[in-house]
Amino acid sequence: MKRGGEYARDSRYLTTRITADGRDGFPVEPGRYRLVVSRACPWASRAVIVRRLLGLEQALPMAIAGPTHDQRSWTFDLDPGGRDPVLGVERLQEAYFARDPGYDRGITVPAIVDVPTGEVVTNDYAQITIDMSLEWTAYHREGAPALYPPALRPEIDAVNETVYGDVNNGVYRAGFSGSQESYAAAYERLFNRLDLLSRRLEGSRYLVGDTITEADVRLFTTLVRFDAVYHGHFKCNRQKLSEMPVLWAYARDLFQTPGFGDTVDFDHIKRHYYMVHRDINPTGIVPVGPDLSNWLTPHDRAALGGRPFGDGKPPEAVAPDEAVPAGHTPLA
Amino acid sequence: MKRGGEYARDSRYLTTRITADGRDGFPVEPGRYRLVVSRACPWASRAVIVRRLLGLEQALPMAIAGPTHDQRSWTFDLDPGGRDPVLGVERLQEAYFARDPGYDRGITVPAIVDVPTGEVVTNDYAQITIDMSLEWTAYHREGAPALYPPALRPEIDAVNETVYGDVNNGVYRAGFSGSQESYAAAYERLFNRLDLLSRRLEGSRYLVGDTITEADVRLFTTLVRFDAVYHGHFKCNRQKLSEMPVLWAYARDLFQTPGFGDTVDFDHIKRHYYMVHRDINPTGIVPVGPDLSNWLTPHDRAALGGRPFGDGKPPEAVAPDEAVPAGHTPLA
Repeated sequence: MKRGGEYARDSRYLTTRITADGRDGFPVEPGRYRLVVSRACPWASRAVIVRRLLGLEQALPMAIAGPTHDQRSWTFDLDPGGRDPVLGVERLQEAYFARDPGYDRGITVPAIVDVPTGEVVTNDYAQITIDMSLEWTAYHREGAPALYPPALRPEIDAVNETVYGDVNNGVYRAGFSGSQESYAAAYERLFNRLDLLSRRLEGSRYLVGDTITEADVRLFTTLVRFDAVYHGHFKCNRQKLSEMPVLWAYARDLFQTPGFGDTVDFDHIKRHYYMVHRDINPTGIVPVGPDLSNWLTPHDRAALGGRPFGDGKPPEAVAPDEAVPAGHTPLA
Repeated sequence: MKRGGEYARDSRYLTTRITADGRDGFPVEPGRYRLVVSRACPWASRAVIVRRLLGLEQALPMAIAGPTHDQRSWTFDLDPGGRDPVLGVERLQEAYFARDPGYDRGITVPAIVDVPTGEVVTNDYAQITIDMSLEWTAYHREGAPALYPPALRPEIDAVNETVYGDVNNGVYRAGFSGSQESYAAAYERLFNRLDLLSRRLEGSRYLVGDTITEADVRLFTTLVRFDAVYHGHFKCNRQKLSEMPVLWAYARDLFQTPGFGDTVDFDHIKRHYYMVHRDINPTGIVPVGPDLSNWLTPHDRAALGGRPFGDGKPPEAVAPDEAVPAGHTPLA
């Protein structure tokens, strides 16, 4: 997994797709599947945000794993009896083994499980959110935004590609580097990209077009973890996000948009990274800081124009059973 | 050394004093002693600053140990052949063993060595700077400031006591905590104290009186390391120093005062903490950030009045053989 001290992500995912036409054997069907996430995980958080923006809460119920896990698996330790009430399992691992008893790759979130069989259908996080936008359309709420509109796809894809390599995965490449050289290279690539993104966003409220899109969701999930985790734990410390004025205002704008900040659990985020990665934080001690109340300060980005939800409208308030606990978020 | 996960500093020092009257057998005598420091170490840095403010460079020559060391000792690996040219030793440990072959406590800097015998006289850092002020007066430069004037001593001592417990040593208590609870307690005590100091300094340029004193030196050596090391490495992350406006302006004012910032080697500071403390940073990777150029921005503290050097004047520029290397400081 490591070459020359460089961190390399295992990107071999289960790529079965849930589609409107069911061509992989898994048709879109409300209530049939269960989206398993951790609120700690940026890859899973994309799915949590998109599901809520599109109003798929009823059609695609969600299971939330606890923020910490051992070598083997994410666990349902937040649920009564330590079992997901629908899947009946203690560990997400069980749903992967139900799919393939010899499964030897990462037990990752997000994962979508076929409830009748208990098998993981897909953990291909990049495809999951796209399919929510394009395949689950029959169950979108009224006023759901077009997060991946046809006309903008080439531009969204291009932005996503650089954001993935330099930012989303870039922070991991910095934090899990095995050498000073590979760390420094990842750091430079990360901040160079953030500088470019900052220039792009200086006069433009969103990354692509004038509404929120899949591209904003993907950048947001890294930015929202930046000061709480990546700045210290992953040594991405040229500045805090809060010291990069354009990106900081952009991130706050999204955070304060229904569907984004109301899905963010800073307690899960901090506990996950600091308690699970004992190889870079042997004590497991979780920092008390930073002060997160600054996420609620005015962002002044509305002056740039833009229509967050396009011709649609924001989602309603989060349902009580999916609300982030008070004390885990500055919103509460 | 640890009780209930709490970090406890070994404070058993060699307390022999070098005095004007030589009552401990070590009279003040120019050129007889050698001050051994590391620019990484905040306790040693106090002595480096005071020595320069008072102009004791000729009377009390200085040996600079390398920023990293192994379990045994600070070493003179920056010097040709890896030996201090005056003491002729590779490791500071040798001077401690010369003093006491059974010495079993910390091999710490600052240490003052008696050159003729090669023995450490004292490593009592708190007394060392006071004695520079009060016992080495015959060798002070013209215009040297009164860092510990009689009328202000009770107030300086009172400030120093709280700054030591909550701030100077407080950052170590946070960073080396063995439990979440003792870490959180140290963090709270640290930031409560910083808030109090911030209020104290809001309308007052210096901590005690209207000139720089020993109290400012002691607070400065911790503040100057705050964003580069303590914020991330020791998890002192409620805010960066640069996000605490009063303390940040105060620290910049001192940094830009001759005798303070021109002694600071950020490269040594960062390499020391991140490479030596493998128990909390197992990879030994040193962060590239933070951007340090902000230390040179205007501080606007002169508007508060105050006379940095009282009736005296600032020291001349640092002698070339003691200058911090370019690239290790934003000043160069």
